[in-house]
Order: sequence, then structure tokens, then C-alpha cells
Amino acid sequence: MRTEPTGATTAEPAGREFFTTRTVAEALAGFRPARRTPAQTVPLTDGLRRVTAEPVRSPHPLPGFARSTVDGYAVRAADTYGVSEGLPGYLTVTGAVRMGAAPGVTVTTGSAVSMPTGGAIPPGADAVVMVEYTALAMPGTIEVVRPVAPGEGVVRADEDAAEGQQIIPNGSVLRPQDLAMLAAAGVTSVRVHARPVVTIFSTGDEVVPPDTQTLAPGQVRDATASALAALVADAGGEPVHGGIVSDDPGALEKALRAALPASDVIVVSAGSSVGTRDETANAIAALGPPGIWCHGLAIKPGKPTLLAECGPVPVIGLPGNPRSALVVFRLIGMPLIRLVGGCVTVPPEPSMRAVLARDLASATGRLDVVQVTVAGGVATPLFGASALLSVLTSADGYIVIPEEATGLDAGAEVTVTLYA
Amino acid sequence: MRTEPTGATTAEPAGREFFTTRTVAEALAGFRPARRTPAQTVPLTDGLRRVTAEPVRSPHPLPGFARSTVDGYAVRAADTYGVSEGLPGYLTVTGAVRMGAAPGVTVTTGSAVSMPTGGAIPPGADAVVMVEYTALAMPGTIEVVRPVAPGEGVVRADEDAAEGQQIIPNGSVLRPQDLAMLAAAGVTSVRVHARPVVTIFSTGDEVVPPDTQTLAPGQVRDATASALAALVADAGGEPVHGGIVSDDPGALEKALRAALPASDVIVVSAGSSVGTRDETANAIAALGPPGIWCHGLAIKPGKPTLLAECGPVPVIGLPGNPRSALVVFRLIGMPLIRLVGGCVTVPPEPSMRAVLARDLASATGRLDVVQVTVAGGVATPLFGASALLSVLTSADGYIVIPEEATGLDAGAEVTVTLYA
Repeated sequence: MRTEPTGATTAEPAGREFFTTRTVAEALAGFRPARRTPAQTVPLTDGLRRVTAEPVRSPHPLPGFARSTVDGYAVRAADTYGVSEGLPGYLTVTGAVRMGAAPGVTVTTGSAVSMPTGGAIPPGADAVVMVEYTALAMPGTIEVVRPVAPGEGVVRADEDAAEGQQIIPNGSVLRPQDLAMLAAAGVTSVRVHARPVVTIFSTGDEVVPPDTQTLAPGQVRDATASALAALVADAGGEPVHGGIVSDDPGALEKALRAALPASDVIVVSAGSSVGTRDETANAIAALGPPGIWCHGLAIKPGKPTLLAECGPVPVIGLPGNPRSALVVFRLIGMPLIRLVGGCVTVPPEPSMRAVLARDLASATGRLDVVQVTVAGGVATPLFGASALLSVLTSADGYIVIPEEATGLDAGAEVTVTLYA
Repeated sequence: MRTEPTGATTAEPAGREFFTTRTVAEALAGFRPARRTPAQTVPLTDGLRRVTAEPVRSPHPLPGFARSTVDGYAVRAADTYGVSEGLPGYLTVTGAVRMGAAPGVTVTTGSAVSMPTGGAIPPGADAVVMVEYTALAMPGTIEVVRPVAPGEGVVRADEDAAEGQQIIPNGSVLRPQDLAMLAAAGVTSVRVHARPVVTIFSTGDEVVPPDTQTLAPGQVRDATASALAALVADAGGEPVHGGIVSDDPGALEKALRAALPASDVIVVSAGSSVGTRDETANAIAALGPPGIWCHGLAIKPGKPTLLAECGPVPVIGLPGNPRSALVVFRLIGMPLIRLVGGCVTVPPEPSMRAVLARDLASATGRLDVVQVTVAGGVATPLFGASALLSVLTSADGYIVIPEEATGLDAGAEVTVTLYA
């Protein structure tokens, strides 16, 4: 599927028809490039937020030996049946278990062994009485005032994981507690997907690098690339700055062609409005199949979005306004990077419920993304041109008005996705 | 304030009294060490999630010149008053603005200048008519079918930020859109707090490094340190592995003393149960004032938690069970690291509302943290000994039963803090 190149090269505004416009839901469900980054092995210490490339199984049973969960006395549970405050049972203390050491003693009928929390249960014992329910009756003898059931106060040798049991699924983002589990299992390196390399291009003759101190009239510093790089990193990707490409015909095609071999995803900001500068569609068309999947997204802001594949590399063309570009990239670009990076389970985003402060109009068939501040449980929409970055930096988060809605009423309960 | 050293060195379980137990709310409000990391300058490209050490002001007005927000024609708004589909106005097109260039033409009464979105508004114009509301009447002349008000279709030269205006507050965690704003303003380096250096010690004669392939009876691999390092990084800190310290008397004191000069925070896992191995309190007492702030936290799991300051360095002693340690560290340790790292505005955490699947009992005066899975809007509690890491790795998040509650009923609406 291809768009017709508009061919507009003058400053005369061209027609504004968009080709193959899709909804955001269609794009998320339907634009599913096959590309996945290869697996690599990293040390566990570098594993945080990496995406597993295979299920991880425990090479050992965990914890590996039966452990006490309390400070107390390892006993035979049957020796405690029927005991009470009024009628304590008496047991002979025949030894003590030390942390990190094999229990040097066996528990027999009528005997008890002193246990620290986490200590190895001695042979013969099937429960641990908490020290709170015991008292020293005389040297070498304790009284027990509460009965215990078999297994009480004990973690079984394979209760945390059996040998060979899956402890981390494939395609999951490693969280702090997952690293704990892997460390406990002695798994000190892990197979993960390589971080997707995401090359970011900015286009536009008006765009100059951020370190330009004095702007010529009409120039703007490249704001989008810095934020896109951050969002790429947040999605687990490795951002590469492709730089600023001029609007000269052929310049973008040349830049994309050069970037394709080393990129897992390419992002072009400001290249997909149907107007005077629609070079992205032309460049993608020139780079060969499968080509453009959609050109135009039913979202506000962000309509002039382009999704494509150039050979094996997914390409996203973003609107020129930084705010529109960042809105679309959060909704479409970050999930794409996670997909390419092998992520099966998408990590949750911060969000909260709030009450909408005022009416919001919307058009059906289009997803509206509205920036809001939140205070005291009330979400107040921020307005202003898409060109204004201050709307984004002032926002605590955003709400989405779904395609089927014609708007939201003041007082409606809404979900605010919060910026972390 | 000091705890009495228990002095217990035998395997005999000691008394379980906790000294100066505090609630979690008291700890968050009251344990506020003065230490802050110094400021440093980093390039903007390394700024993501760093904490600003001073407010950032825009050195220039932004966008710096009046810009069009639409494709269309720059006009004098007064020239469009009263026009309609039935009675269009006619304007002479006297030129075209190119992106990134100074407008080479002035708009006068009766004239219009072709504008791309983002182009610089020419002198004399005070509005831009969208191209959709125009048509080419004849070469060089357009008809306009809708009136515009002054300022319509235009972003003012200082509408995003005035010169000298604060664009990022002090103590805020830099988000992707903040980097965009800084780049737009030409701010390519930023003053941020140094990442707090957090030295993590594990204690216990039973604890061996994660790369230990074969465990001797009673030994466990150090699971907590890996997860703590990850949580430290999540909180903006720089984790340093202090290693595993034996239970030998004096060993921890020596290790802490050596780590103090280079640490902003010290975390000791498994060192604060009142039992056979309460070396942390002893070591802290030996290191001098201000000493222990609380020993015992009204939380389950996690009661044997110790908060202290050794000279200028905050010290957290965590329970020995990995799960308890990680629960406490999320609630108390991560906010502490953010505080020391200069963070004023705490970033939001992922959470969701869910319906509780079953009754949960709790004791008043104690905060209960219950791990849950969430499916279909229902939160199902996970049970199991504090020693089990699988409870944490299986969980999607946790719910908190507040101090004043005696439990939660099945069907209650709860907030689940989700693990990201």
C-alpha cells in the first residue's frame, strides 16, 4: 500500500487529504512488525528492566533445605498435641541450630532443638514452635504452651521453587524482585533481548541543534529529538541520534537508507504532514516494500502520523509539532519498541482516577489526548496550541477521550495516565 | 536514643521486645535526615530522571518569534471580518513564508502571505487563516470564507516561555518532555543533584554470594542485595555492593566505618531482628551520634526495621527475610534515597483500583502490606511465609491495609500499587 507522493515542493499549501487513516486501536492491533532483537547474555547485575528472551528455570530447588520461619524450637508436632497454658508440654533441649550450618542434631520424641529464623530444620523435626509459646522450665528443658501442626513454622526445601520450575516467563521485563529470585537460584547471567536500536531523525530546514545559542529568524531548536530519546530509553530501547535532515529532496531518503542496516526502528519527527514538506512518504516509497501501513492516525493531536516498514525495519513518521509528536510516540511508538524488544507483558503505567473539571468536546471516530493537571482528585485540562511545549511540561498526565465518545462532561470520572 | 544491646551471642532465642517502634507514617514524616547530595552539571542528554538542583529559567523567549499554528495565509484579521461562504473576502497573495527563514514580505491591508505550520508570521499580519477556509480564486488571489480573530492561528513569540521564566522547578525529576523544553530553550546542560551513593551490606553467616553453585547445608544465596540495588537505581541512587559481612562481633561495625566516608546512605539487610544476630544496633551505637531513630516499625512484614544516622549518613537496617526487606525498602528506603537526592516532587507510581477477592484480617496500629495478583479488576491476595520470594515474583503489586483498620472485607475497593 502506498500513498501518492504529493509532489508539493512550493510553499503553496497543498491538499490536506490523508491516505489510509487508521484508529489508534487499529494501529496497535494491526501494525505488528515481525522484527525482534536477538538474544544476548547479560550479567544479572545489568538485568534490571531487560526483557527475557527465554523462560528462566530454577536449576535448584529453593530454598534448597527446609527452613524455620520463626525463632523457636524444632520439634515433632505430635509432641505438642493437647498442650495449653494450663497444661504445658515439656521437651528436652538437645541442641541448637546455627545459621548457615548443617543441623548437627536429630530431633527425637520428647526433644527440641533451638532454631533461629531461617535455620535448617534438623532431621526428625516437622514443625517449629515460636519462642513466644515456650518458656525455659529449667536448664535444658522448655515448656510448650501451644500445639503446632506438622509443617508449621517451616518452609519446605522446594516451596519457593522446585528444581526446573519456571521462575521467570519469557518476554517479561525484569523487576527488582525478579533479580532477587534469580540471585537466590544462583542464576547470575540471563538471556535477554538486545535493546532495540532506535535511530531518531529530525527533519525541517527550520530545525537547528539545541546548542544553537542565537537563532536566525524562523529557526527553532530541535526539542523533539531529546524527548524522543528519553521515551525510547523508557521503552527499553537504545536511542541513536540520526541528526537533523534538511528538506532537500532526496536528503531524507539518503539518511534513512544509511540508517537502515544498524537500526531496529527508525523514527522521523516532523516528516509526515501532508503539506509542503511530506518527504517521509516519498523517502519510504523509494526504499521499497512493504512500505506504508498507514498515513494518518485518528488522533488529536497527532493526525499526521505515518507507520511503515522499510524492509525489516519499522519506521514511524511523527508530526512536526513537538507536543503532537510526543503524544503519538507514547501511544504508538513506545509499544512498538517494546514489541521489537521482545516484550510480551507490558509494564503498567502510573495512573489515577480523577474528576474532570470541565466539559471536553471531541469528535467521534477520533481519539483525543488531553493534557491535564491534577490536584485534590480533580483533573483540569490544559489548552494551548500543539506547538506549545509548556502545555506538556505543566501537565501531570493526560486523559484519553475514546473514539466512540463525543466528549466528556464536567464531573465525569476519568483515568489520568500520569507522567513519571 | 539507643537500644540496649541484647548481647545475645548464643543460639538461644532472645526476648523479642522492640525499642522505639514507630508507624510507617511517623517514619516518613519524622525520619528526615538533613543530608543532600551536592549539585553537579550534566549534559542534557544525560538528564533523564535526574533531579534538578536549582530552578531552570529560559534564557530566551520561546518560541522566540510569532509562529503559525496552521497551514494557511497570514492576514490582517480585520480584512476577514464579515466574510462567509456566501460572501467571501478576496485577498492578494503577495508572497510565501518558507520554513526556517525570515519572512521576506510584509502583510498590508488587502494582502495575504502563504504560511506553512510553524512559519514565522510576517510583519503586519495578526492572524492566520487555515487553508481549508480559503480557495484560490484566480492566480495570485484567494477567497476567504471564514473570519479570523486577531491572534488566531498564531503562537506569540513568548507564549511557550517568557525570557527568564522558570521552566523547570527545583527538586523535580526530569521527564522526557522537560528535556524537550530545555532543548527548545537552548539549555544543553543542567545542574542536578549527584546520585546518592547507597552502600548495601548483607549480613549473616548463612549468606553466600549468588554465584555460589553448590550450597553447603543451611546456606542461602544473597537474594536481597541484587533487588535492593535495583530499587536504589529506581529511586535515582547509585548502588554500591558492600558485600556480605559475617556475624562475627565487630565485623559489621568495621564494615560500616569503612563505608561511611563514601556513602550517602547505607543499607544493611538482615541486621535488625532482635534475636541472635542483632549486630546492626550494636555497630551503629559504636559509630556515634545521632544514632538510632527507631528500632521496630509497625508494619507487616518488616517489623524488625531500624532507622538511624551515623554522623551525617542515614542508615537503614532491614529484616532478614528478603520479602520483608524489599517491602520495607519500597516504603521507607526509596523515599529516603529520593530525599537525600534532592527530590522534592515524588514521581507517581503505577496503581489501579481493584476489588478485593477475599477477607483480609489485620491488627490495628500496624500497616499490613499484602502482595496480590490482579486479573479482571479483582485483586487476589498471595499468601506464604515472608521467606518466600515467589510470593513477590508472582505478585502484580501490593495493597496496604492502613494502621487504623482491623482488616478489609471481600468486595472492598482497594488501590493496588503495581510493580513496574
